[in-house]
Amino acid sequence: MTMLEITDVTATAACCTPLVREPLTAADAEQLAHTMKALADPTRLRLLSIVAASADAEACVCDLIEPVGLSQPTVSHHLKVLADAGFLTRSKRGTWAYYALVPGTLDRISQLLVAS
Amino acid sequence: MTMLEITDVTATAACCTPLVREPLTAADAEQLAHTMKALADPTRLRLLSIVAASADAEACVCDLIEPVGLSQPTVSHHLKVLADAGFLTRSKRGTWAYYALVPGTLDRISQLLVAS
Repeated sequence: MTMLEITDVTATAACCTPLVREPLTAADAEQLAHTMKALADPTRLRLLSIVAASADAEACVCDLIEPVGLSQPTVSHHLKVLADAGFLTRSKRGTWAYYALVPGTLDRISQLLVAS
Repeated sequence: MTMLEITDVTATAACCTPLVREPLTAADAEQLAHTMKALADPTRLRLLSIVAASADAEACVCDLIEPVGLSQPTVSHHLKVLADAGFLTRSKRGTWAYYALVPGTLDRISQLLVAS
């Protein structure tokens, strides 16, 4: 009986790689998946990249319409998704909304996901 | 007439934020969106996180089934998506496949997307 128990324990130990830290919880993974969905779209990636490549990492909505070749409401919608996910901040000056990059957002996600 | 021309040029200049580097091309954005889709799923985020939290940042498929509560074929499918997107590498030892984290993948994406 003792032998059997020992064998069972060994079999379990051989199976399982030990964890060296806590992985994401199911709830955190749900929230992070929602954030990553904001980046799983080519138009939003281009918009984020154009904002990041602009002087002071900020751009007017009016400058983002022509490069992606979409209507102003569509561009505004994509920018709102990026802002809601924490990649951009929005400020209104005069007629137009301006979007600025929030630096380090993807780096923080990387830390959360895979940091040792 | 000259006055009108000058006014036009000024209006255009006031509109456009100068770019300080090249943003993503449409083709690169398509490819990167495909990569980000691999992370826009809570199960895949949890699997990646568990692999990253395992000793030596490597885990056997057999250890990943129970934590996410899905069938082995489903878990293997999700791991393949993560490997195809460049977040994990796969090696077969004995009966089981082992998946190891590719360090810095998300950091490299961050660089590509928003680096100055």
